[in-house]
Amino acid sequence: MARYSLTLEYAGATFHGFQRQPGLSTIQGELESAVRRITGEDALVMGAGRTDAGVHAIGQVAAIDLDREVDVPRLLTGLNAVLPGGIAVTGMSEARADFDPRRDAVWREYRYFILNRSAPSPVLRDFTCHVPTPLDLSAMGRACGLVVGEHDFSAFRVKGDSAESAVRNVLECELTRPAGHMLCLRVRANAFLYRMVRILAGAVTAAGSGRMDVDELRGHLEGGTSPCADPLPAEGLFLWRVEYPPGVKR
Amino acid sequence: MARYSLTLEYAGATFHGFQRQPGLSTIQGELESAVRRITGEDALVMGAGRTDAGVHAIGQVAAIDLDREVDVPRLLTGLNAVLPGGIAVTGMSEARADFDPRRDAVWREYRYFILNRSAPSPVLRDFTCHVPTPLDLSAMGRACGLVVGEHDFSAFRVKGDSAESAVRNVLECELTRPAGHMLCLRVRANAFLYRMVRILAGAVTAAGSGRMDVDELRGHLEGGTSPCADPLPAEGLFLWRVEYPPGVKR
Repeated sequence: MARYSLTLEYAGATFHGFQRQPGLSTIQGELESAVRRITGEDALVMGAGRTDAGVHAIGQVAAIDLDREVDVPRLLTGLNAVLPGGIAVTGMSEARADFDPRRDAVWREYRYFILNRSAPSPVLRDFTCHVPTPLDLSAMGRACGLVVGEHDFSAFRVKGDSAESAVRNVLECELTRPAGHMLCLRVRANAFLYRMVRILAGAVTAAGSGRMDVDELRGHLEGGTSPCADPLPAEGLFLWRVEYPPGVKR
Repeated sequence: MARYSLTLEYAGATFHGFQRQPGLSTIQGELESAVRRITGEDALVMGAGRTDAGVHAIGQVAAIDLDREVDVPRLLTGLNAVLPGGIAVTGMSEARADFDPRRDAVWREYRYFILNRSAPSPVLRDFTCHVPTPLDLSAMGRACGLVVGEHDFSAFRVKGDSAESAVRNVLECELTRPAGHMLCLRVRANAFLYRMVRILAGAVTAAGSGRMDVDELRGHLEGGTSPCADPLPAEGLFLWRVEYPPGVKR
C-alpha cells in the first residue's frame, strides 16, 4: 500500500462543497468515484480543508491510499478523463505513508476576488464578487494590516460555531490589484475558522466603503459574539495554496 | 433623435452568436429587448462585428438611435439590470449622428487564449482552449510574425465563403504568455474573414506542435482554396477591442 498526494483545482459552482454527502455531487464524492472507476479500489479521500458549496480551489491538497502500485502520470490522466469538468487533478505524487493533508499543513492561503466597477462582468461573474460602488483601497489596505498576527477571530466566524478556540495566526493579509478593476484579498494563516475569509472580506470591503472604520475593526479583532460583517458570496473565494514542511508531502 | 455608442462585454457560451435570430437568445436580440424594456423604444442595434455562437467579447461596439433624450449613466445601469447575466454594457456615450460601428472601425483586435499544460483547468475551461501537449513557443512566435502585413487569407476562411476578396491587412500578430501555462494569440487587422482567427489559431498551434512548418504556413498566406488548419473552438476567442478615428465615436 502507498499514500499519494493530489493537488486539486475546482470551480465550486456546481458542487455541494468538498465533503461527501449522500446523493449530492461533492468534490470528495466525485474524486472517490473517479478513483474507483480507474483503479477499482475504494480509497478514502482526505482533504486539507473542507471548502463550502460554491467555493473554488486552485491548490486544494488531498491524499489517498492505494493497495496496488500505480503509474502516477497515467493515473492522473485517467482521473481527469472521468472527473466532471468542474474538477481536475493538477498534480500527483507518492507521499510519506503518514502524510495527513489537514494536520501537516503549515499554512493555508485563500484569495478573495472583488470586481470594483459600476458595470458587472459577464466573463468574470462566476469567479468574483461585484462591488459597483467606489472603494477606498488605502482604507482596505490599512484594514488588512490590522488583521496580521495572532488574534481572537470570534467576530469573524458564523454565530453558534463556538466549540473551540477562535485564536488564529494570520501570517499575511494584503489587498492587491492584479488588473484594472480587479481587487484581490490575499490571506495566509495557520488555519481558518468556518466562513472566516468571507466575513473578513466583508469587513475589509466595509472599511473600503466607509461603513466600518479602522478603530471599529481593531475592536472586532479582540473577540466578539457575533459576526462583525456579512460574509461576501462564495463565488469570489479560492482556496489558493496549502503549504507543508519539506519532505512531508514529497 | 440621437445616436449612442455602447461597449459590450459578453460570455458567449449561452448565446447563439451576435446576430438576431427568431426564437433564439442572441446578443443583438437580448440588447434590443433590454432597450425596449427600459426606454419603450424599438431601437435597432448595429454592431461592429458579428461574433459567432460561443465567442466572447470584452470590447464589442454597438450603436443605437433613440428618439427621446436619455440620461446616459442611468440608462446604462438600467440596461445592465435587465440584461441576462451573460451580457453587460460596460460603456455608453452619445456618438456622432452618422456613427457606423462596422464601417467606421479602423481596426479590430481579437485574442485567442490557449491553456498549455497536461491537466485541464476547471476554472478557465469556458474561456480557453486546452492544448495538453507541449508547444514550441518560438515556432508559434515565428508563425505569428509571418502573418503580419497584407495577405490573401483565402486559406484562413471557411470553405465556400468565396464571394468577396480575402485580402486583409494584419497590423499586429503576436503570441504572449500572460500567466504560467496560459498563451494568448493577439491579432489586430483592418477586418477579419469568417472564422479567420480560429483557423489562424489552429495554424499557429499546428506550427507549435510541429504539424505545420513555417514554409508551409508561408505558402498558405499566398492564397488557397480550403482552410489550412482546423479552427480552434469558440470558447478561447474574445473580440477584444474595436478602434475608431478620433471624434467619430466621441
